[in-house]
Formats: sequence, structure tokens, C-alpha cells
Amino acid sequence: MFDNIDKTNINELGEFGLISHLTKNIKLRNTSTLKGVGDDAAVLDAAGKKILVSTDMLLEGIHFDLAYTPLKHLGYKAIQVNLSDICAMNALPTQVTVSIGMSSKYTLEAIEELYEGMYLACNQYNVDIVGGDTTSSKQGLVISVTVIGYADEDTIVYRNTAEEGDLICVSGDLGGAYTGLQLLEREKLIYLENPNIQPDLEGKDYIIERQLKPEARKDIIELLKSVKVKPTAMIDVSDGLASEVLHICTQSNKGCQLYEEKIPIDPMTYDTAREFNLDPTVCALSGGEDYELLFTVKQADYDKIKHDVDISIIGYITEPSAGRNLISKSGQVHELKAQGWNAFKQQQ
Amino acid sequence: MFDNIDKTNINELGEFGLISHLTKNIKLRNTSTLKGVGDDAAVLDAAGKKILVSTDMLLEGIHFDLAYTPLKHLGYKAIQVNLSDICAMNALPTQVTVSIGMSSKYTLEAIEELYEGMYLACNQYNVDIVGGDTTSSKQGLVISVTVIGYADEDTIVYRNTAEEGDLICVSGDLGGAYTGLQLLEREKLIYLENPNIQPDLEGKDYIIERQLKPEARKDIIELLKSVKVKPTAMIDVSDGLASEVLHICTQSNKGCQLYEEKIPIDPMTYDTAREFNLDPTVCALSGGEDYELLFTVKQADYDKIKHDVDISIIGYITEPSAGRNLISKSGQVHELKAQGWNAFKQQQ
Repeated sequence: MFDNIDKTNINELGEFGLISHLTKNIKLRNTSTLKGVGDDAAVLDAAGKKILVSTDMLLEGIHFDLAYTPLKHLGYKAIQVNLSDICAMNALPTQVTVSIGMSSKYTLEAIEELYEGMYLACNQYNVDIVGGDTTSSKQGLVISVTVIGYADEDTIVYRNTAEEGDLICVSGDLGGAYTGLQLLEREKLIYLENPNIQPDLEGKDYIIERQLKPEARKDIIELLKSVKVKPTAMIDVSDGLASEVLHICTQSNKGCQLYEEKIPIDPMTYDTAREFNLDPTVCALSGGEDYELLFTVKQADYDKIKHDVDISIIGYITEPSAGRNLISKSGQVHELKAQGWNAFKQQQ
Repeated sequence: MFDNIDKTNINELGEFGLISHLTKNIKLRNTSTLKGVGDDAAVLDAAGKKILVSTDMLLEGIHFDLAYTPLKHLGYKAIQVNLSDICAMNALPTQVTVSIGMSSKYTLEAIEELYEGMYLACNQYNVDIVGGDTTSSKQGLVISVTVIGYADEDTIVYRNTAEEGDLICVSGDLGGAYTGLQLLEREKLIYLENPNIQPDLEGKDYIIERQLKPEARKDIIELLKSVKVKPTAMIDVSDGLASEVLHICTQSNKGCQLYEEKIPIDPMTYDTAREFNLDPTVCALSGGEDYELLFTVKQADYDKIKHDVDISIIGYITEPSAGRNLISKSGQVHELKAQGWNAFKQQQ
């Protein structure tokens, strides 16, 4: 009701008007940004460092559901999932380009909300928006972000350099984003059946936030730097712990021993998973979207990180012939399998 | 008929299988590419130069119609329109990231065709594909490309640096992509009315190619370098000549005098426009998608480019108070207006 009063139709602005409206308040924060929005390309200065580039696309109906995703949160998340990829190289993100495709039926105010979320994420992480593309879409909302960061070559951490005996570590806790999604999906179904019933998400803020408002673990990169630990391999947890551990093992040509009891799961995640008759460990292994950092460190670095409550040591790297194993709480050995979130399998 | 025999459903491969299948034959060509596909981010080396970054998104139903766009051509074009943005900074593109969203109903062979076109463009322009994202889409085909190039700071050409008295130049010819589109749209309608009628595009290869297979004018950048001309301002012609000239004038805070009779239009473009009762000059001014380079040069550089058949001098830059004018063939002065292709206005 009243939803369209005082709202601006984006057709009136046109593409250039819209871009200039959305970008007029950008203040560049990084000395590496020589020229941002407004020309055929942005101009950046690596100042002798190596350049890190990554890109992620979010599509309506696949990666998000606007029924329960506020546009501001969506903008925030679209930036964060990209920043997370640069953190996963042991570097800090500095610039992003943002391409948006959306129905021309959106109001300017709706797009502003989306951009507000993106600007908020960029401001908090000291990242410049330096370019992008804005277009109409006949097909729902499309968001494509490319992120850039810089690092000295000897500080970059790849996926394929884990060594036998290295400790496997993960930041934060896992499975929260997935159980949060189960809650949101349930409340959506209830609402669709009876729009008069209010959503019952009380006390579930943490896991709802894990789904709707993930944070790239820039703080972990800064922490590791401050205690002088360079991980031997690193990846971010976007598809689920199992999938990411297997990426490191496969690319490093190694095996692993992972301990179920060591996998960090928040009590709210645990209880909510049980409510849905889900195994909390499976939520952590295969749920995805937690955007924590999974990394391996030399055993010699154990003392430097053992007291950090935000880092859990969940296993170790083995020779390849030992296999990739999960040791259950009861002591049974299971082969670790990736049954993670897969954008292609979703539609089957 | 038989269309699905021996075809591979992409669901069987999953996201990681698909990515590895599509990228397994990539050979890196540039020393600036330290690490391509396969980690959280690509690692690049600017080797002391500045970095140029640009991005463009192509959406089905807005930017292309699969009824008459072969997937291989579409892949080729998606890369070219991005490469063109780096050329427009007076630099050469070196790397791209490619994000694709497509229905899981596509066969692997169809996606391979799309990628073949992208690889072809990259190989011809010596560009590395260093990363990307591949996901399912519920919403038609989505292609988002980010392109990176490098340049010494003093060779980069911006839009906002045109000076009074500079000559306005454009490469190639204009309006062809737009008239080619008119032909394709006409034949589509005829086909929809009667599928037994074969499309009548004979003798129209040039303008069909202008629409379906544009080429970034890397050769012009190399040519200008070889004759030691650094343009004073430059932009690529994606939205139509008028819009691009106005971008340079606005950003440089200048006026211009443009001569209709000097605007390069190929005879096939001219005749086809007439067939459609379109003014060929309007097709050049507002048609867009020609991906030629529009640039300004000092008068002192005139002798260095005057004999190049691929460069037309179409006017000159004036003080801002003189306005932005188009002098018609009959000598009348018109205010130059951008009525170019606008992705948002299309849906009105």
C-alpha cells in the first residue's frame, strides 16, 4: 500500500542518468584507485604488487529469493562473497566492479537500497567501486561483481600447496548459513499458505544473519599476519567444508584426516538443524555459504594460533594414499564426500 | 530432430566438472598472467604499468536474441565488446574473467559452442581467460565479462581531455551493426509467420557481421602508436556516434562541430537503411554497437593520419559556448542529441 507514491521509475532516468545518480557520492579510498567510474575503464595502480582478480555472479531464483532477502542485504552479500575470494588468497580486497541487470519496473528507491548495501560493505572493508554496468533485465535480478586486491608475491596463499602433516584450520563456525536458509524457506512456505501468520524467527538472529549478511573474514587475514603465520594453503567456505577440504587435497595431491567432533558448530545452528531433522555435521560439511576461511598451517605454527577462539583445528593433511577421511564422533572412519551446494544440481 | 542424441546434459557434470571441462585446454599467453583459472582468484603482474579494468554484461532478450544469434558468435561478441573498452583507453587488453548463467537444460555441446567463440576472440587478441563463474540460470542466458589491460600512465587516453581545435576522428564505418539488426529482426518475423520461408540475407554479409561479429579496434591502437599519435580523448562507439561525441564534450567541458557528410557509412549500410525507410545518418548517430573508436587528435597530428582510409575526420572540438552541433549535408545547423540505444528505454 502506498508503495508507489513518491517513487521514481528508473525509465525516466535512463542508463546514464541512473549510473550517475547511483555513483555520484562515491569517495575513492585507496591510493591504488587512480580513476574510478566514468570512463571506458577504471585505472588502477598495483604499485609493484601482484594483482588478484576474482568474480562471482548472483542470479535471482538460484542464489537468492527476494521473498525473504531485503535488497540492502542482497547488495551487502553480493560484495562480501566476492571480498571473501581475495581474503582466501591471504590478501585484502581493494576495488570492485559491479554489474546489475534488473527489470525496468524496479523503482529507483529499490535500486538505491541494493546499492546502499553494496556501499555499506565497501565502506566497511575500505573497498572502492570503480566501475560496472547497469542494464535492464527481462529475467529477474542479476548481479555480477568482480573484485581486485593486491599482494606481494611471497604472501599469496594458493590451494595447491598443503603439505603432509599440516594442520587443517577453519575460522568461525559452520552450517549456520544453511540452517538459516531452512528457517527462511519454512517461514516463506507458511506465509504463502496463510499471509496473516507472521514469520516466527525470534531468537534466531544469528543464523538468519549468517545466511543474509555474511562477512568476509578479513579479520582472520589480519590476525594471521599479526601472529606471523602464513597458511600453507587456503580457500573460502562457499560450497561447504567437505567440498573445500577436497579442493585443497586434490589440488595439493594430498589426503586428510578430519575429526567430526572438532568441526565448529554454533549451538543455535545445532539446535535448529535438529529441529529440521538435519544432521548438524552434514549442515557444516555440505551446507555452504558460511564464507569462513579454511586453511592449513605448519605444525610449527600451532602455538601461535592455538589460543584463538575464532580458529578451530579440525584435522591434518596426510599423504595421498591415506585417503580423505572423516573420523566420526564414535570413531568410525568415513570417506569424505562433497555433496555441497551445486547450482546445477538444484534444478534437477 | 535428433538434437538430443549424443548430447551431454550439463547436470551430469556439475559445476566443477563443467568448469574443468571448459577450461582444461586453456594455454596462458601473457607473462602478466601468473595464475589463471583454478583458485579463489587469478594472480596477475602489472610489471610496473597501470591496470585498466572494465566490465560489460549481456542479457538474453535485452542484448541478444538467440533466435538469430549463433552461440559461437555470441561468445565472440561478449569478449569483443569488453576488449573494445580497453582499446578505448589507448591500451591493449590482456586478461578476461567470464561469468555465465544458463539454464541447466542447455547441452554441454551448446555451452562448448559459446566458449569456442570466446576462446576464438581471446586467441585472436592474445588475451587470457583467467577466471569466472559458471552457474545455472532460471532466467535465460546471462554473460558477464570483466577485462583487464595494462598501460604506462602517460599513454592512457581518457574521455575528459579533448581540447578546443582538436580534430574529431572515427575509425571504420558506422550504422552497420544497427542496419544488420534490422535485417535479422525482419527475417525473424517472417520466419515466425511462416517457418518454411528461408531467411533472405544474401549479399548482406557485411552488415550481418557488423551486428553478430564485431571486432575491437586493437589495430587502430597499434596504428596510432606506430605513427606516434596519442589521441587527446577517446571512447568506443557502443551506444551510437552522437552519444559518444556528447560524452567526450560533456566530460571535457567542450562543444563540437560535426559534419554529416564526413560520417563514414558503408554503401551496404546506406542502401539497407533506405530499404527500411531509415535515415542512414540517424543509424550512424544513434544505432550503436559498431565498436569503432571515436577519438580527438591535435591539429598538428593531422598529417600523420590524413591518408589512412580507416580513419575519418568528422569534425572538430569547440569552446563549450559554441554548442554541440551537427552540420547537415544541406548546411543546416542542428543540435546534436543522443537518442542512442538505451537498455532501460527498450522496455517502455
